[in-house]
Amino acid sequence: MDHIYKKIELVGSSPDSIEKAVENALTRASATLRNMRWLEVVETRGHIEDGRIAHWQVTVKVGFTLDE
Amino acid sequence: MDHIYKKIELVGSSPDSIEKAVENALTRASATLRNMRWLEVVETRGHIEDGRIAHWQVTVKVGFTLDE
Amino acid sequence: MDHIYKKIELVGSSPDSIEKAVENALTRASATLRNMRWLEVVETRGHIEDGRIAHWQVTVKVGFTLDE
Amino acid sequence: MDHIYKKIELVGSSPDSIEKAVENALTRASATLRNMRWLEVVETRGHIEDGRIAHWQVTVKVGFTLDE
Amino acid sequence: MDHIYKKIELVGSSPDSIEKAVENALTRASATLRNMRWLEVVETRGHIEDGRIAHWQVTVKVGFTLDE
Amino acid sequence: MDHIYKKIELVGSSPDSIEKAVENALTRASATLRNMRWLEVVETRGHIEDGRIAHWQVTVKVGFTLDE
Amino acid sequence: MDHIYKKIELVGSSPDSIEKAVENALTRASATLRNMRWLEVVETRGHIEDGRIAHWQVTVKVGFTLDE
Amino acid sequence: MDHIYKKIELVGSSPDSIEKAVENALTRASATLRNMRWLEVVETRGHIEDGRIAHWQVTVKVGFTLDE
Amino acid sequence: MDHIYKKIELVGSSPDSIEKAVENALTRASATLRNMRWLEVVETRGHIEDGRIAHWQVTVKVGFTLDE
Amino acid sequence: MDHIYKKIELVGSSPDSIEKAVENALTRASATLRNMRWLEVVETRGHIEDGRIAHWQVTVKVGFTLDE
Amino acid sequence: MDHIYKKIELVGSSPDSIEKAVENALTRASATLRNMRWLEVVETRGHIEDGRIAHWQVTVKVGFTLDE
Amino acid sequence: MDHIYKKIELVGSSPDSIEKAVENALTRASATLRNMRWLEVVETRGHIEDGRIAHWQVTVKVGFTLDE
Repeated sequence: MDHIYKKIELVGSSPDSIEKAVENALTRASATLRNMRWLEVVETRGHIEDGRIAHWQVTVKVGFTLDE
Repeated sequence: MDHIYKKIELVGSSPDSIEKAVENALTRASATLRNMRWLEVVETRGHIEDGRIAHWQVTVKVGFTLDE
Repeated sequence: MDHIYKKIELVGSSPDSIEKAVENALTRASATLRNMRWLEVVETRGHIEDGRIAHWQVTVKVGFTLDE
Repeated sequence: MDHIYKKIELVGSSPDSIEKAVENALTRASATLRNMRWLEVVETRGHIEDGRIAHWQVTVKVGFTLDE
Repeated sequence: MDHIYKKIELVGSSPDSIEKAVENALTRASATLRNMRWLEVVETRGHIEDGRIAHWQVTVKVGFTLDE
Repeated sequence: MDHIYKKIELVGSSPDSIEKAVENALTRASATLRNMRWLEVVETRGHIEDGRIAHWQVTVKVGFTLDE
Repeated sequence: MDHIYKKIELVGSSPDSIEKAVENALTRASATLRNMRWLEVVETRGHIEDGRIAHWQVTVKVGFTLDE
Repeated sequence: MDHIYKKIELVGSSPDSIEKAVENALTRASATLRNMRWLEVVETRGHIEDGRIAHWQVTVKVGFTLDE
Repeated sequence: MDHIYKKIELVGSSPDSIEKAVENALTRASATLRNMRWLEVVETRGHIEDGRIAHWQVTVKVGFTLDE
Repeated sequence: MDHIYKKIELVGSSPDSIEKAVENALTRASATLRNMRWLEVVETRGHIEDGRIAHWQVTVKVGFTLDE
Repeated sequence: MDHIYKKIELVGSSPDSIEKAVENALTRASATLRNMRWLEVVETRGHIEDGRIAHWQVTVKVGFTLDE
Repeated sequence: MDHIYKKIELVGSSPDSIEKAVENALTRASATLRNMRWLEVVETRGHIEDGRIAHWQVTVKVGFTLDE
C-alpha cells in the first residue's frame, strides 16, 4: 500500500545521443531489476576522440519498487 | 527600454526525446504567453514502463517580457 | 606520466539538438586545441522566437591534456 | 496524452507542524488551482517568539496539470 | 492568521546599478501585485557592449501574501 | 576497528507524516539489512489528490556497517 | 533602527519528531541567547538502533538580534 | 605563524544599498571583534513596503584571526 | 551563424562598490578580449582593514564570441 | 562495447589520513566488487576525541563496470 | 539525554598537508572548547608563493556538545 | 592598485596523495603562468586499478594576477 522504492545510480553510454546512453543503462539494468519506475539524469559527460564525441556518458538515478 | 522579465517553471513530456519534451511545454504555453524569450533546463527525468522509457519529463524555466 | 589537464568553458549552439550544440562547440575549439579528452555539460538553455526554440545553447567544460 | 505541468512556489505556515504548514498552503491554493498533483519541499523555516517556535514556514513547489 | 505567500521570479534591469535593476522589477510588478513583502536575489548578470556594462540584469524571487 | 559503511538511497511513503514515511522505509529495509546506523533526509515530496496530501514521499540515504 | 543579526548553527535531537528536535535546540539556546527571531532547517538526520529511529538530529541556523 | 581563523555569520541591513548593509554589519561587529580580515556575501534579500524596498538585508560570513 | 562562446573567470576589485569591482575587471580584460557579451556574478567577497571594507572582490564569468 | 557502470556510495575511515580512509573502503569493497574503475570524494569528516582527530571518515562514490 | 550540539566554522592552515591544517585548527580551538565531537571539511584552498603551495587553508565545521 | 585576477581550472594527478596531485598541476602551470596566488580544490577523484588507487586526480581553480 505505502510504496517503498530504492534508487541506484548507473552510468550508460552511447555514441549516438544522450537519450540512447540512458536507454542502454536501462536495458542492462532490466536484466536484474524488475519494477523500475522512473529515472533522474544526474550528470552528462562526453568522451572525446580526434576532436569529436566518441560516446556520451550519462549518469542516472533509477527508482524501483521494493514492495511486491 | 529597461526590459523586465518574468520566469515561470513548466514540465513538458514526450516519448521521443528531451528536446521534444521541451518543445511540447512551449507549444502549450504559447497559447497564453506571448513574448517568450529563453528557457533554462532545470531537471530531466524519465518515466519507465516495462524496462523502457515511456516518456521524458523535462522541467524548464521560461523567461518572457512584461514590458510591451 | 602523471597527466595534467586544463579545463575551459565553452557555449555551443545549434537549431537542431542539444547534442549538435555541443558538437559545434567542439568543432570550433578543435581548430586551436589539440588533445581534448572529455566534456561535462554544465548548463542547457534555449533561445525562443515566435514560441519555438530557435537554437539550443549548451555550456560545457572541456578537458584537454597539457603534457605532451 | 503528453502531460504538461506548471509549477508554482508557495509558502505555508502553521503553529503546529511542518506537515500542517504545507497543508495550509495547499488548502489556500486549491481555491483557485485544480489538478494539483505533487509538491516538493524547498525550504523549512520557523518564526521564533519568546524562545519558542511561533509558527513554521515551509516553502513548497506545487505541480499541476495544464492539459485538460 | 496563518499567512500564506506565493513567490514569483522576476528579472529586472538597469544601466545604473544592481539595486536599481531590482527596483525596476518591483515597480513593474507593483502595478498588478499588491502586498509584496520580501525579495531574494537569485542571480546577477550583466549585458556587455563595447567592453562596458550596458545594463545589469538581476533575477529576484518576490514573496507576497495571498490571504486578505 | 576502522569501520567501513555503505550508503543506499530509499524512498519511503506514508499518508500520515514525514517521520512515518521514513520509518516505513526503514522497516522494509531492515528485513534484509542488518546494522543500519544513521540516515540523512535527501528530499521531501508529497503526492496530492483532491487538493490534499495523499501521502508523503521522503528520500533518505541510509548508512550501515560492512565490517563484522 | 537598521537591525543587525547574528546566525549560529545548532543541532537538536529528539526521539519523537523533527519538530521536537528543533524545539529542544531552541530551549537549550534560550538559556544564553535572548532575542532569537527565526530559524532555517539546514539538515535532517536520524540515528538508527535495532532497525528503528532512536532519535532525530536536526541542524538549524538560528538568527537573533544584536542591536539592543 | 600558521594562521587560524574563525568565521561567523552576520546579517546587516540598510535602506540605501547592498554595500551599506554589509558595512553596517561590520560596524556593529567591530565593537567586539578585532582582527576581521575578509567577508563573503552569502545571501541578499530585501524587505518590501508599499511596493518599494524598505531595506536591504545581506548575510555575510566574516573571517577573523584567532592567533595573536 | 551558430554562435560559439568561451567563458573565462575574472576577479575584479574596487574600494568603492560591487559594480565598480566588476567594471574594473572588464576594463582590464577588454585590452585583450574583443566581443565580450555578458557576465555572471559568481562570488562577492570583501577585504577588511581596521574594521572597514578596504576593497570589494567580485568574481565574474565573462562570455565572449569565438566566431568572427 | 558501450560500457555501463554502476556507482555505489561507501564511507571509509582511518586514523592516519584522508587517503588511507579511502583506501580502506576500497580494500573492503574489492572483496566483493570486481572491476572498480574510479571514485569521487563526496564528503570528508573527522571524529574527534580529546581535542584530536581520532579517525577520518571519507564518503566516496565508486564506479565499476557491469558489462563483462 | 537528548544531545544538543553547536557547530562553529574554523579555518586552519599548515605548510605540510590538508590533515595538518585541520589539526592546527583543532589544537587552537581546544584551548577554549571542550567536548568537540566531529568536524566536516567545507572548503580546501592553498596559498601559492613562487609557484609552490606555501600553506594549505582548510575550512571546517566543528560540532561540540552543549549539554553537560 | 586595484588587483585584477584571472582564474583557470586545472586537473593534476599523482599516485601518492591529494596534495601531490595539486602540486604537480602547479609545477606544470608555473612554466607559463607567473604570479599564481591561490588555489581552490574543486573536485577530488581517483583512478582505480586492481582494486587500488592508481592515481589521484584533483581539480583546482588557480588565481593569478593580471596587473603588472
